[in-house]
Amino acid sequence: MLTLRPMRPDDFERFWPIFHSVASARETYALDPDTTPEQARHYWLRLPLATQVAEVDGHLVGSYFLKPNGAGPGDHVCNCGYMVAESARGRGVARAMCEHSQSLARDYGFLAMQFNSVVACNDVAVALWQKLGFDIVGRVPRAFRHGRAGLVDCLVMYKWLGQGDVPLVP
Amino acid sequence: MLTLRPMRPDDFERFWPIFHSVASARETYALDPDTTPEQARHYWLRLPLATQVAEVDGHLVGSYFLKPNGAGPGDHVCNCGYMVAESARGRGVARAMCEHSQSLARDYGFLAMQFNSVVACNDVAVALWQKLGFDIVGRVPRAFRHGRAGLVDCLVMYKWLGQGDVPLVP
Repeated sequence: MLTLRPMRPDDFERFWPIFHSVASARETYALDPDTTPEQARHYWLRLPLATQVAEVDGHLVGSYFLKPNGAGPGDHVCNCGYMVAESARGRGVARAMCEHSQSLARDYGFLAMQFNSVVACNDVAVALWQKLGFDIVGRVPRAFRHGRAGLVDCLVMYKWLGQGDVPLVP
Repeated sequence: MLTLRPMRPDDFERFWPIFHSVASARETYALDPDTTPEQARHYWLRLPLATQVAEVDGHLVGSYFLKPNGAGPGDHVCNCGYMVAESARGRGVARAMCEHSQSLARDYGFLAMQFNSVVACNDVAVALWQKLGFDIVGRVPRAFRHGRAGLVDCLVMYKWLGQGDVPLVP
């Protein structure tokens, strides 16, 4: 049974091995593979507006953060990052976190969600985000030095979360 | 005669009116219009790898910053932001700064330059970046609440700075 709840400061050390493994692989995130636990805590837990953990039977299997993608005139668009433990992949954890994050984003009043840098050859992620309603709105050539594949493109993906097409007051 | 040189800490207060005017207008940057001088100094001068000022006869007419657009596997792509004093627009300041920034980026070893959020209706900027070799590689729908125009799209623009197509070693 998968449950989602806010990450507490003392959860971070259980999440750190997942973060470290993802950063070290250099396959999905533009993160320094030598990121320290303290830097990771800042990036994943302190900086964002919200950070959630996914647990199965008390085991932490994943986490995501939610933050505004820009300030001022761009602060109606949010950005999320998701990480899943390697041992828990293919079991719907990313899907559950992304659905949860969309609902949380709407609760915060965000009108859209943007992923700035989805590694184009990460087929599983790209297909999942598309299934969950995200469009590919950009493709940045050779923006990522993939740990195994070398220079690859990154995609910008986007989903409007608002109801209807009512333009905002400037 | 336009000159470019690194911004020194005591230049910042001369730049602040330009920054404040750009942020307040909500027409080009996803910046909080209420950004304080101290926050602006952090964003524009402390965080980036390099910040330059453009002067004409000793008057500060513009500034730009240069920083990596991502870490680790994305740190070969840089990002820049440019601001020009309203009184100095249409005189080639932005063009001079962008050309200077490309050269500086190459000196730092960057292989590409990416603008993440060019407001699509900013025709002057879009045309200038295209003239200087940048391609539109993405269009994010309704990502900016423009001070006068309401909800508008943002463009992702990109230029490869490297020589040839030699793939990097992962």
